[in-house]
Amino acid sequence: MTQIDSALSRASVVVELEPGRYQANLDADWSVAGMLNGGYLNLPVARAAILASPHPDVMAVTTDYLLAPAPGTAELAVQTLKAGRTVAYHRVTMSQGDKVVVSASVVTGRLADGSGQTILRAEPVPLPPVELCDRVPAVLPGGFVFGLMEHLDVRMTPESTAAMDKADESLRVAGWLRAADGTPPDPFLALLAVDALPPVTRTTTALGWAPTVQLSTYLRATPAPGWLSVYVRGSLVGDGWFDEDAYVYDEAGRLVAQSRQLARLPRG
Amino acid sequence: MTQIDSALSRASVVVELEPGRYQANLDADWSVAGMLNGGYLNLPVARAAILASPHPDVMAVTTDYLLAPAPGTAELAVQTLKAGRTVAYHRVTMSQGDKVVVSASVVTGRLADGSGQTILRAEPVPLPPVELCDRVPAVLPGGFVFGLMEHLDVRMTPESTAAMDKADESLRVAGWLRAADGTPPDPFLALLAVDALPPVTRTTTALGWAPTVQLSTYLRATPAPGWLSVYVRGSLVGDGWFDEDAYVYDEAGRLVAQSRQLARLPRG
Repeated sequence: MTQIDSALSRASVVVELEPGRYQANLDADWSVAGMLNGGYLNLPVARAAILASPHPDVMAVTTDYLLAPAPGTAELAVQTLKAGRTVAYHRVTMSQGDKVVVSASVVTGRLADGSGQTILRAEPVPLPPVELCDRVPAVLPGGFVFGLMEHLDVRMTPESTAAMDKADESLRVAGWLRAADGTPPDPFLALLAVDALPPVTRTTTALGWAPTVQLSTYLRATPAPGWLSVYVRGSLVGDGWFDEDAYVYDEAGRLVAQSRQLARLPRG
Repeated sequence: MTQIDSALSRASVVVELEPGRYQANLDADWSVAGMLNGGYLNLPVARAAILASPHPDVMAVTTDYLLAPAPGTAELAVQTLKAGRTVAYHRVTMSQGDKVVVSASVVTGRLADGSGQTILRAEPVPLPPVELCDRVPAVLPGGFVFGLMEHLDVRMTPESTAAMDKADESLRVAGWLRAADGTPPDPFLALLAVDALPPVTRTTTALGWAPTVQLSTYLRATPAPGWLSVYVRGSLVGDGWFDEDAYVYDEAGRLVAQSRQLARLPRG
């Protein structure tokens, strides 16, 4: 994954301290209600794994979110469990002081450009045009600060906005997404996009911060230039838990990322 | 998760060597074409995490499959990264000799009985009656040995059988599943069920062993007695990779487990 100079790449830089040990500077901007976003935290994790790997790209990242890290310095330790010809397996630990905040399993490999022959059975229903979709503001009514939206330009479909307003329990939200600074999408933006929309619990009466417990993201192709379209749906909400699947497509209609997460319901 | 005496529980027993270190005896029976099944390997992983946890159940298991383990003795090391009041996070490593064969992130907690209020938005389309579905034999035509099917009674829907016969690229298979020895389903059977049907690549021309790279399973409720119904679908096949989602329901129609995996295409 080539480094592009952008707000996103600057906010997720990792610096090698020694082989297998890296330092990140977590940027308070990439947050939701003061909590650093889970998709954002995956970026330094992915970058550290790539630095430790013989392969150029991240194929799969599964992250356990143990504690909400504070903005500022964090250390990443990468243990490569196996480096094969096609894929390598890594365990990445993000710590602050003596506390592990994030623990991840990362698979690295080489991402296809998406031009090869594929069978796609999760074909996206086209979203309404961007102009008809509302941009998610960085400050929501009520003073809820969605800092992430300073850097991301996210346009929710009218259907999603209505679902959230009516709390229709559809557990579906969708929208367009791009970097606010105009940087073309790369796999890192796709990695962030899976966790950037409001949680599906926003279509229920369970509002507020929904802490992710475990999030798995697979990257499937390098995105083409243009907007990403993001479709999020939940299967089951109950007993204090919910799940959420996200599918991210590029403007060429290719599936570039897919994710699934298990999260706790907002305490309300 | 209560221990039930069954073929499955006997094949996945783990014995504590010392706190955090356990031994399993991998049983050659639970295999596909001589390779131990990935869902089966998750069972000793889950049992070891539960022994190390203050909580009784597994909520999420994400496993990286590094090497195909040999039947016989394997050692499990559990590192508990955080033990909270509601959930605990563990890293589990399965080794044979000096080789790590499996590495997993396990979240433990307390599984609901499924009687609480829920919103289910992944409602199963009812399967045809069991009597109309064909049991998967333990030896397939051509001599392919599906050892797992000695212990599992899996009945594929006529639609799935036709999809596989015609290689219709639907990337969907579904069927009924229960333990062949008549043991009622428990969360461990659900954990196995997500990886027990033929891979969705069986509906394409890419036949053969499809090695799982990473598999994430969430357990959502304790299953009610009776058959499990299992729905598997793939989103994208291409560039040497494919993904697969499984949804497992009990006879009461509750979602008891869901999984997603990223796997390599069979070499053919």
